[in-house]
Amino acid sequence: MDGTDGRRRVAIYDTTLRDGCQGSGVSLTTEDKLKIARALDRLGVAYIEGGWPGSNPKDIAFFERAARETWQHARIAAFGSTRRAGVRADEDPNLRLLVEAGTPTVTIVGKASPFQVQHVLNTTLDENLRMVADSVAHLKQAGREVFFDAEHFFDGYSEDPEYAVAVLRAACEAGADAVVLCDTNGGTLTGPLAEAVRRVVRAVPCAVGIHTHNDCELAVANSIAAVEAGAIQVQGTINGLGERVGNANLCSLIPVLEYKLGYRCLPPGHLARLTEVSRYVAEVANLAHDPKLPFVGAQAFTHKAGLHVHAVAKTPAAYEHIPPEVVGNTRHILVSELSGRSNVVVKAKSFGIDLGGQPDIVRRLVEQIKELEFLGFWFEDADASLELLIRRALPGYQAPFEVLDYTVLTEYRGGRGMLAEATVKLRIGDQVFHTAAEGNGPVNALDQATRKALQGFYPQISEVRLEDYKVRVLDDHHGTGAKVRVWIRSGDHQRSWSTVGCSTNIIEASWMALADSLTYPLVVPVTETVMRAFPG
Amino acid sequence: MDGTDGRRRVAIYDTTLRDGCQGSGVSLTTEDKLKIARALDRLGVAYIEGGWPGSNPKDIAFFERAARETWQHARIAAFGSTRRAGVRADEDPNLRLLVEAGTPTVTIVGKASPFQVQHVLNTTLDENLRMVADSVAHLKQAGREVFFDAEHFFDGYSEDPEYAVAVLRAACEAGADAVVLCDTNGGTLTGPLAEAVRRVVRAVPCAVGIHTHNDCELAVANSIAAVEAGAIQVQGTINGLGERVGNANLCSLIPVLEYKLGYRCLPPGHLARLTEVSRYVAEVANLAHDPKLPFVGAQAFTHKAGLHVHAVAKTPAAYEHIPPEVVGNTRHILVSELSGRSNVVVKAKSFGIDLGGQPDIVRRLVEQIKELEFLGFWFEDADASLELLIRRALPGYQAPFEVLDYTVLTEYRGGRGMLAEATVKLRIGDQVFHTAAEGNGPVNALDQATRKALQGFYPQISEVRLEDYKVRVLDDHHGTGAKVRVWIRSGDHQRSWSTVGCSTNIIEASWMALADSLTYPLVVPVTETVMRAFPG
Repeated sequence: MDGTDGRRRVAIYDTTLRDGCQGSGVSLTTEDKLKIARALDRLGVAYIEGGWPGSNPKDIAFFERAARETWQHARIAAFGSTRRAGVRADEDPNLRLLVEAGTPTVTIVGKASPFQVQHVLNTTLDENLRMVADSVAHLKQAGREVFFDAEHFFDGYSEDPEYAVAVLRAACEAGADAVVLCDTNGGTLTGPLAEAVRRVVRAVPCAVGIHTHNDCELAVANSIAAVEAGAIQVQGTINGLGERVGNANLCSLIPVLEYKLGYRCLPPGHLARLTEVSRYVAEVANLAHDPKLPFVGAQAFTHKAGLHVHAVAKTPAAYEHIPPEVVGNTRHILVSELSGRSNVVVKAKSFGIDLGGQPDIVRRLVEQIKELEFLGFWFEDADASLELLIRRALPGYQAPFEVLDYTVLTEYRGGRGMLAEATVKLRIGDQVFHTAAEGNGPVNALDQATRKALQGFYPQISEVRLEDYKVRVLDDHHGTGAKVRVWIRSGDHQRSWSTVGCSTNIIEASWMALADSLTYPLVVPVTETVMRAFPG
Repeated sequence: MDGTDGRRRVAIYDTTLRDGCQGSGVSLTTEDKLKIARALDRLGVAYIEGGWPGSNPKDIAFFERAARETWQHARIAAFGSTRRAGVRADEDPNLRLLVEAGTPTVTIVGKASPFQVQHVLNTTLDENLRMVADSVAHLKQAGREVFFDAEHFFDGYSEDPEYAVAVLRAACEAGADAVVLCDTNGGTLTGPLAEAVRRVVRAVPCAVGIHTHNDCELAVANSIAAVEAGAIQVQGTINGLGERVGNANLCSLIPVLEYKLGYRCLPPGHLARLTEVSRYVAEVANLAHDPKLPFVGAQAFTHKAGLHVHAVAKTPAAYEHIPPEVVGNTRHILVSELSGRSNVVVKAKSFGIDLGGQPDIVRRLVEQIKELEFLGFWFEDADASLELLIRRALPGYQAPFEVLDYTVLTEYRGGRGMLAEATVKLRIGDQVFHTAAEGNGPVNALDQATRKALQGFYPQISEVRLEDYKVRVLDDHHGTGAKVRVWIRSGDHQRSWSTVGCSTNIIEASWMALADSLTYPLVVPVTETVMRAFPG
């Protein structure tokens, strides 16, 4: 398994589309699944488990479409279970669907714990061995590469090591290309897990893989320990998606294995695509991208405390364990009460604004930011609002428009459905624009009316799209009267930017964020935003 | 350090209020900090690091107020750094503030890496040793228990093990009660970390602690490995809050150490308070409680896939690594397209509704749920809306009110601020109630007007509070015209419940969730919700 570059290879087996979809909050269409599979192939994983054809028709559709595409790096795998007890392998409907999926690789799951065999499957230990062997042999006869997922392996191993290993041997002897040890309940600790892997690697005549869950927050550690104990296939999901608290997170595993331990997991140079793929998968799955994800999260290389910011500015290695660009991530500097004036100066510099010689402006900005944060604004994730705040403080700032009035009416009259209508009155230069628009919601109506008013003067506004919109209740104790913070991400063809608004009135908070998001592209030309990363 | 129960003790040192506050999105008032400290004391951690008196006045206020309270289990610790280079310890302003904090314990941080000493501190290796020794001795003279946090210890150890250990010895010989090995950048892997701890434990004459960060998703594994290598103090934060991707998560560490490895971390019986404290800290910090947190997250014992639900119903140990009640958590069953009719029956049973003999109703419910989920509703985290859906499908359901009309007007007229006004027309029995109310936002105005209309008939509605309110944009590609899902959690004195609404119009989506949240307590009496956990 050694590559030509002399690095030991570890095959990355992605199960985002199968185990990842069993997590709460994940629901993918066939099209979503194809998009994610293509992204995984671009990343360069060795295997993409596309789904469980026996469990739902959407997965069957996926395999039909996947068979018509060309995959650059990955092999597509279909997942299913061994034949049922007392049924011949060539008559088992689940195995038939697996073969019909037409994938080069098939992974079948079976039991490796006597407790599970007897109390969940309700069959005998011997019949379970036959179920494993028959199913593997049947799929090998059909010309497939076959992996055997030994469910509950580690529980089974501590219960009855001989039987657990006998199950693996049955799979190997029937021709399995690898046996995968699954910590299905995620309860195994690193020490005993590594020891079991070490013994299995010596005891079975085929390759060994590892599949862990994060119930003890040890999935990544356990997978690494398994590789160091001799496993050569690692199963996991992008961003650690998966049932309960999730599967082993490939976005942490891959950089540790590849960058820190010197294994070869991806084609050379592909590691830098990791952050992009992580964010893309979250977007397609319609999940927020967790900023606290190691390596790929927006906060993974974010510095807040004044002390740290200072040191990071001196030498990034002081507070970063790897250069962010290794995984395609970037460094961020936060502005907050914990930091001081130097943070604002550094942040402004990242916007291309030099506040170096203007201590009065900096002092006033720090005060203003503190006051707004006290009121509930939060600029950490709203760079465009912060940049506008700084630009408004500079001499000679010209607002592209001035808001005079706006109204929004939302109406439900029994039987006639919903109506949302907004009016906006703006001044641009000497002219007053008074517009009205309907929308399919109040913020949409406001957005439409505002764009109508701006469009004559600023035709480029038609390219701005609102990409994401979030609302957060700031004070739980005031019910529907609580203060809310609205966060909007907008984008055009070249960039995206985030803005914030805060009020007890969700329409007003939305309006603030919306107005900033429409102001930003009029104030900050595209050329200025290109390549102005913090100078590390 | 052995307790009377024969279990080895590990001192849990919580730094949520210091290192945890350096994370993005966390900003606590003095009152918030006291609330969290009291919760940590109830949990029974050994140490609560309250803050850094040298960094901001809020932390000084915390220590003043903490000194006037009685702490049952925990000792309060103040955090700071060693004296500056070239300044006498008794003249160092930071050390003076640390003594003035009046805490029984003081933790000071110093450098253990030659690179850091020379390139960040800009001083000599010898002066750094004196800074450590002088500062520890000064605080011991002031009568404090003193811990020395060796910053960047593992980087320093791999750079120059002799110097790194010399720094620790300087602290021990000056009287430090423990030296704490910090993986400040979070980049150290478990193997080398455990090996370094093992050597340090043999090399230094005082107790050893461990402080890790999660940048490789290994903070929990590294802390456990350190304890197994001889560390007897573990530093971490509730929910893994902290700079960048966070510190070692005590909510995972404590149950692994205490329940799985047999150490004594908390007073007997206190482990079952863990989930409650985890959620409380998130609430006070105004952060969403991550449902994917191991052990304490809402999804940690949640089962979705049909296969699993079936097995869990048979025997919980089949798919749970520990009983949820060990950490004070509970089991959840999800309804989703991946599951089928049996899930709906099990779920209804958890609401106290027996659908066993009514296959037609179950079939219609499954279809209805699938259709609503297709439209964007999501019942996984909206049990009250799901329960109402089921109850409405039962023969004899009586709606407590019928909605005829509602309108909301939001108006901004230059100089006169914002106005939000709603009207609601409801039918209750034979009577029609037509009310109007203002609010500080449109949803609040609707809420007020609806309560006005309901109050005459249903006085108990005045006890219902809206506790949380979330909005999620479902389709990023439609800008402000995208469909939004609104989720509301409401509560009264005895229980809390969650509801969902979905529409392109945020007011309509809010209204759906709001109407359900006001309907629920009128339809489901309190007695029915008590003690109806899923029968495991």
